[in-house]
Amino acid sequence: MKTVEIKLSQNPYKVLVGEGIFENLSNEISKKKLTQKRFFIIDKNVNLHYAGRIRAAFTELTSGNSIVLEAKESKKSFESLFKIYSKLLKENYGRDSLIIAIGGGIIGDVAGFAAATYMRGIKLIHVPTTLLSSVDSSVGGKTGVNFGDTKNIVGAFYQPELVLIDTSFFKTLSKGEVISGIGEVIKYGFLSDTKFYNYLKKNLHKLQNLDDIVLEKVIMECVKIKGSVVISDEKESGIRKVLNLGHTFAHAIEVDQNYKIKHGHAVIAGISCAMYLSCKLNFITENALNEYFEIINALSSEIKIAEYNFNKLYALMRRDKKNRESKIKFVLIGGVGEIVLDAEANKSDVEYAVKCGLKIFTKR
Amino acid sequence: MKTVEIKLSQNPYKVLVGEGIFENLSNEISKKKLTQKRFFIIDKNVNLHYAGRIRAAFTELTSGNSIVLEAKESKKSFESLFKIYSKLLKENYGRDSLIIAIGGGIIGDVAGFAAATYMRGIKLIHVPTTLLSSVDSSVGGKTGVNFGDTKNIVGAFYQPELVLIDTSFFKTLSKGEVISGIGEVIKYGFLSDTKFYNYLKKNLHKLQNLDDIVLEKVIMECVKIKGSVVISDEKESGIRKVLNLGHTFAHAIEVDQNYKIKHGHAVIAGISCAMYLSCKLNFITENALNEYFEIINALSSEIKIAEYNFNKLYALMRRDKKNRESKIKFVLIGGVGEIVLDAEANKSDVEYAVKCGLKIFTKR
Repeated sequence: MKTVEIKLSQNPYKVLVGEGIFENLSNEISKKKLTQKRFFIIDKNVNLHYAGRIRAAFTELTSGNSIVLEAKESKKSFESLFKIYSKLLKENYGRDSLIIAIGGGIIGDVAGFAAATYMRGIKLIHVPTTLLSSVDSSVGGKTGVNFGDTKNIVGAFYQPELVLIDTSFFKTLSKGEVISGIGEVIKYGFLSDTKFYNYLKKNLHKLQNLDDIVLEKVIMECVKIKGSVVISDEKESGIRKVLNLGHTFAHAIEVDQNYKIKHGHAVIAGISCAMYLSCKLNFITENALNEYFEIINALSSEIKIAEYNFNKLYALMRRDKKNRESKIKFVLIGGVGEIVLDAEANKSDVEYAVKCGLKIFTKR
Repeated sequence: MKTVEIKLSQNPYKVLVGEGIFENLSNEISKKKLTQKRFFIIDKNVNLHYAGRIRAAFTELTSGNSIVLEAKESKKSFESLFKIYSKLLKENYGRDSLIIAIGGGIIGDVAGFAAATYMRGIKLIHVPTTLLSSVDSSVGGKTGVNFGDTKNIVGAFYQPELVLIDTSFFKTLSKGEVISGIGEVIKYGFLSDTKFYNYLKKNLHKLQNLDDIVLEKVIMECVKIKGSVVISDEKESGIRKVLNLGHTFAHAIEVDQNYKIKHGHAVIAGISCAMYLSCKLNFITENALNEYFEIINALSSEIKIAEYNFNKLYALMRRDKKNRESKIKFVLIGGVGEIVLDAEANKSDVEYAVKCGLKIFTKR
């Protein structure tokens, strides 16, 4: 078991990474002297595969102190929150309670926002069970739900007490879900340095096959990068924006595709668009664009984007939370490890980037 | 105009107090270099009396960038939040927006929670227009809404950029609303020291008549006390609990009375119960009880409590957020300025305290 410390000044916490470490969780909770009053929010699919394992680790688990949620974007809703609040209230959960979220990003986001807001904040532990949520949402404190057709528009920054990443849960992920996680991993490849970027490029195949050694190294690296960014800018007022590379496009694509596309797939498509826009605005050369595309091309066959309407995508992008004074602010790149923040672009350049960027995912 | 600084380490802010200072707000916003993208949440009743004044101070105000909310407990709801989120989304409000809440505690709590959660947090200014919200909810960062029949059960700790208290708004308050504010003021009298307690006792009549000099002194004193408590314990894990003197009873009374009783009236009734329980548990003598009751008696004729059911009240108290491990934790007093935290009591003693404490408000 390895550990990354997220050294936030107000709420420091540890991320534990390893294979088969879920059974240590109860012990870790005791070590932290957290309350006995626990509430479990479990991904329906995870429950299907691991109900026995989870109940063996937490024998007190009943239908009264847990809720099973389907990991669908439509469940990242106030309706799900209301179910959680109702159950917490019914069972007299007090302010010293602990929510344990076992599942992917949707479960973590909803459970995190419930923990952030029930009685103005109770304790929270994340057990991400997907590659995507392990490297993405479980670290950094972003929680939230969708409202109307806008993703994550209501939420809070709220840090957990602990994050436990047990890679053995990944074994039941579909190929598409693994690729979705790799979408965010690639983002870290571009944010980090040529060493990690080259390691990723070389080990992409092993990563897709969930090779234990590669998996652990990659997760550790991604969590370290995310942790260091989050420490310098917990509330996303500055540098944290680098984590949104490709995400302005990705969020719009997800809404436009009615959430039928996986988040990490949309991120890969979004990074593809961001690359073309970076090239169009002369932040990178065409040679660099072609080189960076090798990694995107290697994954593109698994990702499909249905017909889309550019004007709708553009309108959706204008709503993105990263925007100030209603102007779209893009996160682009000038090279591996060189991120361009708050880039602005003409609508025609954006249209060019979207059309070129999405071509390989739509032409079949 | 006087100023109290709330010196929170992460989010320090100022509270401005004075008569007729609302017209300075626009200038204060400019001084703080806050955004031009403002959204106004205005109390329906305040709008009725002061629409012209508010629009003269903010000429940009339209139906597109504002919402008028009725200050009813039933409007402290997710329904109201959804209306605010929808309007913010429709008008493309970004993360750099500012919500200005003009109204009493209900408006401030809903607007504050909307600001805390829209895009994971946008800026917030409170303009409390009642005595109650000026000394109570506008300072301290508690925001939230009701859920089911439980008050403030969903919310967040979220600090404003600025609080502006213009006592000229109080002139249109009903007698009952003024008494409601005095309910919280009296609480500070018991929390503070004999000097402020005696000043209050002596000037109770002037305060009821909204004497400008007494009003400003009392508000300054209450805000200072609240500020100092909040600074030492922003998230209410320890000392901040003193602010809940009488509130375990008060919250239960409010629910039991179907929110037909004003908050400050319930607080006076709650303090009355807390006094009897403090005496029953030997924290204060009967002589002290009688002396403290002079201030409560002086206000009691304005407060009416309809028939109540003790067992229902008791069940409601068990749900209070201040409880740990499902035990009711009372905030009691051992004298002026001597607060007893986390007191526990037998159900029979609680029943005695409630029956004695509520007698003067029910027997007519």
